Parts: sequence; structure tokens; C-alpha cells
Amino acid sequence: MLRPLEAPLRHLFGPGPSNVTPRILAAGSRPIIGHMHPEMYEIMNDIKKGIQYAFQTENNMTIAMSGSGHAAMECAVFNTVEPGESVLVAINGIWGERVAEIAERSGANVHRMVKAPGGYFSIKEIEQAIEKHKPVLFFLTHGESSAGLCHPVDGIGDICRKHNCLFLVDTVASLGAAPIFMDKQNIDILYSGSQKALNAPPGTAPISFNERACHKMFNRKTKPISYLFDMTHLSNYWGCDGKPARIYHHTGPVSGFFALRESLAILAEKGLEESWKKHKEVAAYLYRGLEDLGVKLFIPDRDLRLPSVTTIAIPEGYQWRELLSYIMKHHQMEMTGGLGPSMDMVIRIGLMGYNCEKRNADMALNAFADALKNCKKTKA
Amino acid sequence: MLRPLEAPLRHLFGPGPSNVTPRILAAGSRPIIGHMHPEMYEIMNDIKKGIQYAFQTENNMTIAMSGSGHAAMECAVFNTVEPGESVLVAINGIWGERVAEIAERSGANVHRMVKAPGGYFSIKEIEQAIEKHKPVLFFLTHGESSAGLCHPVDGIGDICRKHNCLFLVDTVASLGAAPIFMDKQNIDILYSGSQKALNAPPGTAPISFNERACHKMFNRKTKPISYLFDMTHLSNYWGCDGKPARIYHHTGPVSGFFALRESLAILAEKGLEESWKKHKEVAAYLYRGLEDLGVKLFIPDRDLRLPSVTTIAIPEGYQWRELLSYIMKHHQMEMTGGLGPSMDMVIRIGLMGYNCEKRNADMALNAFADALKNCKKTKA
Repeated sequence: MLRPLEAPLRHLFGPGPSNVTPRILAAGSRPIIGHMHPEMYEIMNDIKKGIQYAFQTENNMTIAMSGSGHAAMECAVFNTVEPGESVLVAINGIWGERVAEIAERSGANVHRMVKAPGGYFSIKEIEQAIEKHKPVLFFLTHGESSAGLCHPVDGIGDICRKHNCLFLVDTVASLGAAPIFMDKQNIDILYSGSQKALNAPPGTAPISFNERACHKMFNRKTKPISYLFDMTHLSNYWGCDGKPARIYHHTGPVSGFFALRESLAILAEKGLEESWKKHKEVAAYLYRGLEDLGVKLFIPDRDLRLPSVTTIAIPEGYQWRELLSYIMKHHQMEMTGGLGPSMDMVIRIGLMGYNCEKRNADMALNAFADALKNCKKTKA
Repeated sequence: MLRPLEAPLRHLFGPGPSNVTPRILAAGSRPIIGHMHPEMYEIMNDIKKGIQYAFQTENNMTIAMSGSGHAAMECAVFNTVEPGESVLVAINGIWGERVAEIAERSGANVHRMVKAPGGYFSIKEIEQAIEKHKPVLFFLTHGESSAGLCHPVDGIGDICRKHNCLFLVDTVASLGAAPIFMDKQNIDILYSGSQKALNAPPGTAPISFNERACHKMFNRKTKPISYLFDMTHLSNYWGCDGKPARIYHHTGPVSGFFALRESLAILAEKGLEESWKKHKEVAAYLYRGLEDLGVKLFIPDRDLRLPSVTTIAIPEGYQWRELLSYIMKHHQMEMTGGLGPSMDMVIRIGLMGYNCEKRNADMALNAFADALKNCKKTKA
């Protein structure tokens, strides 16, 4: 402990965290102010506006969690679901599994729709399951980073409304990389993370609730299980409850909020459409390069691929761990294996936000080709 | 949002967050690495060693929460208490109130021992309450920052052992400022925060569990209500469970851990005894200066005063809000009012860690004298 901190420089081309933009690193290193100073409230208001833009919503109840995507996940479930209520979860990778686990611990009656990693749920399947289980909440992952799938969202919000069910969507890995329109798509609760295409350090997580979600969560009979994640208090801390004074709830991560504010400002400067276009172009360039290497992409349908995280079927005869270790050792570059149900099925390359450039795709392709050449094929 | 981030420079002489040391700001602004890279595990191991030193413990189950002190509070209660179990909470300020609320939401049978802010609990009172309510957990605040009290801890751990009860202590505001010896004092669970005498940004929180606490929490019948705060998973993430591989749980705040690591390294370099001595000396210097201004300290017994946060009884005839606004406006300096039950009773001056210097006490005294001179007395 008597040595100073050391950390190597890495190309973070996995599914996140991704490299942090210098301007965001600088924002995070500014001398801090108090978490309840008026200037901090201004910064929080900027964050709110930035999230509203990124989510394409006018929801007043829009805040950032003092925690990673899992904090947003727990916040969404803890506040909108009461013990004994029915919850329906679409599982086609790790994130649905997590939400089902969280809802179960909350005492909900959880129903799982399970597909293999990267599987796609039709509107008809979803409606049938909603009719059968009558959930108060239906969960879907927009950006399934463990499988590399970007699930279509259009039309599902309407089905949920028809059946008086809240529509909760995870856009941690897809925000800024693939189009999402919270209001237009009738998404009731949407959350994301700071460390993917936003390029901020991990530790904060945008979340937004519309009027329907607020009505459910502010008319519950029981208190949410967590005081820290109770939206009654968080909405006051973020100045969303219309009350004149903010009461101390917890101490937010001031430096993390500085960084998040700057990451949202960069996205606003660049523009969502430009960011979506860039991710699609660079991903297409990466697909071509990978196919030229003779590698098979894991999601066959091009239109369902997540532009921020590309999944590759593990090349036949190779050990994925050996390939990734080689790339880390010789190229100081992170690519990763599968996660949860996609473990041993895929290798993942993420080019997100600041990292989303053709020159980085070239570097990744070069490193991957080098690994294919130099790692042993274990089977004939 | 198209402006870059702005934040003023402030003297953070309230009860926290305190000013962040330049070396810690620099650590927090380093390019990040992956949350599961081997170099990150080394940094997490350093954090663990740093907390063990700061807590004076050899507990293996020592980690940092990805969240502020409230995350540690919820983690302690969620993991060690099951629904229906009895919990005893000593309340003499805001922190006991918070723990009681959290335990109640968890379904515990909560018993409160309540005193006015700054009140002191004798060992006899505590033992009588433990005998009466037979709790599985007894909570006490070591550094009651809302009242400015540093509560004695000696002997209470022995009482808890005798009655088969876990002893949970909050040292958020006192760590590094007043002596605490987790092992020697038989404290079963101890937690703190990053943003007080450690001078790191808010957003991480050290916590440690001894063998007794581990035995209780790893032999429960029900799963803890929070997946994010489940010590089964967190202990694996921190390499404390003896298993060969770490499985992805959540994405820790990499920059926050860089900063926390550095803050603990600075404390280790300085030495605990030196840090305790410095806080005591500077506090004593501040007391004298305040008494010279004719101001009354809120905690009469000098030995019970918290060296990091000094509480002043609101000077007769003054509005505390007016005094604090004056000091902020004319001296860019934060002092704060009371919190929770001590609201309208005290003004608080915190000189913690890096801020704990006589020259800062002089600045604070000068600003306070200036405010007394220039703010209107409202009553005769």
C-alpha cells in the first residue's frame, strides 16, 4: 500500500466498460462541491435534460442512480412491484435472468419466457404470455450484450397498455448506439448505464419513469424494500417531486455525476442520429472484416444485431480463452467471452461511443487475425 | 447542455463530503481498465488491505461497496437479518433512525432506544435492552455526525457476544479521525464512507464482517432481499470466498475504486495514530477559537466530541440559515445546519483528513466571526 496507484493503458473493446473520453476523465477529476449545493442541483438538472434527450422522453421523473445498471434494475423492480404481484420476464441472455432473480427476491410471482441466447420474441408470443400471466410488469432487454442482440421494441408498449401492464426496458448496452424512443414506443420504465456508449466511468445509471409507472409506484400499499432505492426519496433528491425543498437522502457520487453530465453533453453535441448512424456503419465495417477472416457472426439476422457489441461464434477448433489472452497480452486489448447463458458460445467485441471508429475496428480485426494465426488449433 | 461543465471551488468544511486531495483526484481521473482485469483485482486487494488497516481488523471478509454509506448500511442489515428477527437500534441522531427504517423495511422486528441528539448510552442501558428484546443485531453509531458525538465503543462488543447478538457499528464520520479497533473491540460488522476523513469522492463505502457475522449471514434460510448487495456474490467479486474464479456480479465503479485505493494508501502512509492525533489537536484548537468568539459547543463533555465534526449550539438571536448563507457567499465555505433530529439545533464545522489543519480552522473561525458580526440579530 505504500506504492502509488498503477494501472495499465488498455483498449477496452469488450462489452463495457469502454474507454472514457479525455473530456469526461477531466470532468470526473474536478474538485468536488457538496452534493446538495445549488450548483450541484444545476448539474443534476443538466443530467436530467441529457437523459431526457438520450431516452427521447419528456418524463419529469428522470434521474440518475448512484450505482451501476444493477442499481437501476433493482430500483425499477423494487418501486413498481409489490409482493405477490405477477411479473413476466423475457429471457434471451443474462439480463432477463437477473431481473427475474431480483423480482423473485422481492416476493413477486415471476413468470419466465426463455429462449436461447440471442433468441427473439414475437409480439404474438409476448401478448399470449401477458394474457396468460396477467403481469403488472413485463421486462425486455433492448440491447442484449451477452448475446449481441438488439431486440425490436415497436408495438410491445401498446400490448402492455392494452393489458394494464408496465413495460420495463433495459437499454444499458444499446443507448446511443441503436435507436430507442421511450415516449413514442410507450416504454413505461427505461434504464441504462454510464459505461457503454456514453463513455463515462461505471457507477451511475440513468432511469426514467412515465406517468403510468409513477401512478403505480406512488400508490403502493407497502414501502419499497430498499430505503436507498425508494423513488419517493430519490425523486425529491432529484427535484422531480415538485416540493420546494430537497431533504438529505444519501450522498450522491459527485465526481461520477460530473462525468455523467459531461458524457450526456457530448452525446447531445454529437446528436443521437449521428451517433446511431456511426455505430451502424462501424459495426457493418467490422462484420465485413470478420467475415473476411472466415469468422461466423453469432446473430445471423443482420437487422437484429446490436451495433455496440458484436458477437462472434467461437471459431472452430480454437479455445476462446486462449484467443482472448493472446489478444490481451500482445495487443493490450480487451475482447471478452460470453456471459451467463452465452458462456462458451461467443466472443464479444464492443466498439462503443468514443471507441466507435473504423480505425479501432481495424485494430480489433488485426488483433483477432493475429490471434487466429498464432493460437493453436486444438482439434483437426 | 451545450456548455461545458462548470463547478466552483469551495472549502468543504461541513460534515462531508470534504475536499478531495489532489493525489486522489488524479487517481480518479486515470484512464480506466476493466472491472474484472487482473490489475483491477490487485487494486481491490490493496483496498482490502487498506480497509483492514483503517478498521484495525484481520477479517478476510473486507470489501468496499459500490455505493455510499447507505449502501453499506443496507448491505449490513440485508445480509445479517431475516424477516421476523429482532433488531435493536440506538438512536441519538439521524443514523440510528436510518438503520431502524432499513431494518423495518426488511421485515425485522425493530426496537428503538431513543435519546436526544448527542445523547449517550451507558453499557448498563444497552445490556438491559438487549436482555429485554433479544436482538440478533445491535446497532450503534460511533461517529454521530448530525450531533457531533463520538460514542464510546469499549465493552459493548462483549455484551453483544454474551447475548449472542451481532454488534454493528457506523464509523462513516469517524474513521481516521477517532480511534476504532474492530477486532480488539469485538465489533462484528463495521462500515464507513469514502468522503469524510478519507477525502475520496463519495460513492464507495468500506465494510467488514468478522467470523461471527459471516456465520450468521451465510447460514440464513432466505436469500437477502437485494441481489446487488448479496454478500454471497460480493464476497466472490472481492475474492474473499476462497473460490478459484470470480463470476460477473455487477460493474464496480472503477474510477471510484482507484480513488478509494489512493485515499487508503495516504492514510497508511500518514499512520492512524498520527491522523487521530492531528484531528484531536485541530479540533481542540477550533474549540478554543469558538469559545473565544463566545459561542457554545453543543456537546458539553469534551471527551465525547467527534474530532472530525464540531457542533455549535446556534448562537442566541441568530438565524442559522442566514449565518451559513453569509459564510457561503462571502467565504466560499460550506458549514451546515443540523440533520434529522438535530435540525434547528446546531451548526456543524467539519475539518476532516486533508482539510484537518490549523490554518483551515483559522479560516473557519474568521468566516464565522465575520458572519456573527454582519448577520442581523433578530431578537434582543
